[in-house]
Amino acid sequence: MAKAAPVSPLAPKTYPDIPPIEGVRFAVAQAGIRYAGRTDAMLALFDEGTQVAGVFTRSKCPSAPVDWCRARLEGGKARALLVNSGNANAFTGKAGKEAAKLSAKLVAAAAGVPEKQVFLASTGVIGEPLDATKFEPVLGKLVADTRGDAWREAASAIMTTDTYPKLATRVAKLGDVEVRIAGIAKGAGMIAPDMATMLSFVFTDAPIDAEVLQSLLSKSVQNSFNAITVDSDTSTSDTLLLFATGAAAERGAPVIEKASDRRLEGFRRALDEVLLDLAHQVVKDGEGARKFVEVTVMGAETPKAAKRIALSIANSPLVKTAVAGEDANWGRVVMAVGKSGEAADRDKLAIWFGDIRVAHKGLRDPDYDEAEVSQIMKRDEIAIHVDLGIGSGAARVWTCDLTKEYVAINGDYRS
Amino acid sequence: MAKAAPVSPLAPKTYPDIPPIEGVRFAVAQAGIRYAGRTDAMLALFDEGTQVAGVFTRSKCPSAPVDWCRARLEGGKARALLVNSGNANAFTGKAGKEAAKLSAKLVAAAAGVPEKQVFLASTGVIGEPLDATKFEPVLGKLVADTRGDAWREAASAIMTTDTYPKLATRVAKLGDVEVRIAGIAKGAGMIAPDMATMLSFVFTDAPIDAEVLQSLLSKSVQNSFNAITVDSDTSTSDTLLLFATGAAAERGAPVIEKASDRRLEGFRRALDEVLLDLAHQVVKDGEGARKFVEVTVMGAETPKAAKRIALSIANSPLVKTAVAGEDANWGRVVMAVGKSGEAADRDKLAIWFGDIRVAHKGLRDPDYDEAEVSQIMKRDEIAIHVDLGIGSGAARVWTCDLTKEYVAINGDYRS
Repeated sequence: MAKAAPVSPLAPKTYPDIPPIEGVRFAVAQAGIRYAGRTDAMLALFDEGTQVAGVFTRSKCPSAPVDWCRARLEGGKARALLVNSGNANAFTGKAGKEAAKLSAKLVAAAAGVPEKQVFLASTGVIGEPLDATKFEPVLGKLVADTRGDAWREAASAIMTTDTYPKLATRVAKLGDVEVRIAGIAKGAGMIAPDMATMLSFVFTDAPIDAEVLQSLLSKSVQNSFNAITVDSDTSTSDTLLLFATGAAAERGAPVIEKASDRRLEGFRRALDEVLLDLAHQVVKDGEGARKFVEVTVMGAETPKAAKRIALSIANSPLVKTAVAGEDANWGRVVMAVGKSGEAADRDKLAIWFGDIRVAHKGLRDPDYDEAEVSQIMKRDEIAIHVDLGIGSGAARVWTCDLTKEYVAINGDYRS
Repeated sequence: MAKAAPVSPLAPKTYPDIPPIEGVRFAVAQAGIRYAGRTDAMLALFDEGTQVAGVFTRSKCPSAPVDWCRARLEGGKARALLVNSGNANAFTGKAGKEAAKLSAKLVAAAAGVPEKQVFLASTGVIGEPLDATKFEPVLGKLVADTRGDAWREAASAIMTTDTYPKLATRVAKLGDVEVRIAGIAKGAGMIAPDMATMLSFVFTDAPIDAEVLQSLLSKSVQNSFNAITVDSDTSTSDTLLLFATGAAAERGAPVIEKASDRRLEGFRRALDEVLLDLAHQVVKDGEGARKFVEVTVMGAETPKAAKRIALSIANSPLVKTAVAGEDANWGRVVMAVGKSGEAADRDKLAIWFGDIRVAHKGLRDPDYDEAEVSQIMKRDEIAIHVDLGIGSGAARVWTCDLTKEYVAINGDYRS
């Protein structure tokens, strides 16, 4: 929101210093979509030949920009990305579709790129028509202003209720050549698998074909953006796009055309790290969040069952309020395991807060010291660990606590 | 909790005056399970031949009393019911099983009834061993004190975080004879289908066989207790028991042995009403609740899809905080429809708050007046109505808003 909210206590202490990625340039502007006195439009331009992959919300009522991007993804090529904050262009019917089309047309004209290689994302209020003509007066300057090092500005322009810009970067070897991955994200509420009003844009100079890129992205998202939840609410606008300019090929990086190519190993790991880093930053900026919670489930029947149980714990308002109250209330963890619908045997269940086992074999652990657990609950980062003891399925998800501030922020968003 | 919380603003203004139901007697006592200075044990005794039916939590980690009752239900007969508040006897392993067994044994001895016809329910903290010997010193007096009109006392003794006792009653015709149904309930948090730390006990003098009773109860619960949610959290202890003493047979009521018996019509309707009345009272006492919300979904693909969508709306923290903030934020309703996973067509969706249509055919309704909607949002009871326009499936569920008080209550429960 436009209101100055205090920065989340879980925010990173410093921002990474990200050098330009060859073939990508950014600029930001104040288009006046909704907010006054802040940037709300971000344009990224890509060199010719840039490959693109994407994953989107699974909402059955996606926004117009999500529909637009899905359709454009088939070509696998991107020359531009326009993102606005303040208005999600969601549930805006035909008018929304027209607004997306007009936005792409304006970008194409201003940047001299094909309309079908323009990608779009919008975040903000749902159900209000987006006036795309507001982009017209700023697009010329946006194109002229683009530069390779405007990471922080780009990450800030796409914020809504975020209290800090989110950036992450890694370096990987592709063959013998160093390639870079860097990304930005926004999101603070309505965060849940499969994603949320979560926008993230990741860029690399690695020469990787669109199909391979898609396969890497779809897999990597499972244990990062699809393993976080703030409030179990899924937005209509979730968009994660990965752009590969291929510029590193000139420095000798091999062109990758198969997902099975072994030379991808390092890149894959670095991509996982960038996505996980950004996903954690989103959770740490969860609306009203004061604590970052890691939920690990082991010993479930299957990995799928483990993830469902982990999300049941991570989404439980009673677990989340207990964490907010620094109360090691493992009874509520039992409740959340029980309600998940997955197989569980009370008499085999074990639960840890941090490294202290509080429940064991269907009973309160007789050895645990309430004072020690209380110390753990005072920390900023809390690990909850559940072993079901009936199989080998495991999963890990991340969430935050549920505080009065969450209610305050969301009880007064639109007005 | 033992702390004096202010009574919910949604509480009924008066309590019903319930005459005794022949064959049922109650008494309450201070057993000192956890709370000081209040009653925490309730004993009900039934005349010989009383039939019983029950539905329970679907939690995979049910409490010891739930396991106990499930097993005893096979006999179809009941002579006694012991309920305690303060300790749920859940996740207490073998010790919990022993505590349930000992409780039943003590009741059987004190009341002179078969142990296997003693039913049990416990509500309160999870994971702490229940000391059943605490019932011993009070059971003699409990048995001696039982009387037919102690409804209010019984409803109060089983409360935990409830701010008011919950009672409901109806009269029905069975054949040509008037029969009575009356019930009590408790529950305020951890309320979600399929049930919650929700205990409810319903009594009738109608002569209805256990099997028929079970069939009536299982059906009636679908549109009452299984259609409410406070926080999507399902307890380990949900128990709803229906006892039929059959005493009305002496006044000429027909003995019903088949669920298809047409003479059940009036009874069925009255039972539905009692359960719905109690279920609504539970929601209106939802932890921190300031508003009662009715969510109606029509035009879904199937009734099941409609219910899933209705619950997706009713459980959405963003919808619930918007209601708390008196904000007619229908964009969040769209989001909740979208995340339900059920078929929806954005361009056919219509949404009403109260009787004002705010969205229509994929767009904000151009005719709606924000000021009028604001007036509706200020009310205590808010109706949200969604028409998907793609089928004939319909469902209705009830919930409450999500307030800072919910977080306060649950952030400081155990300590």
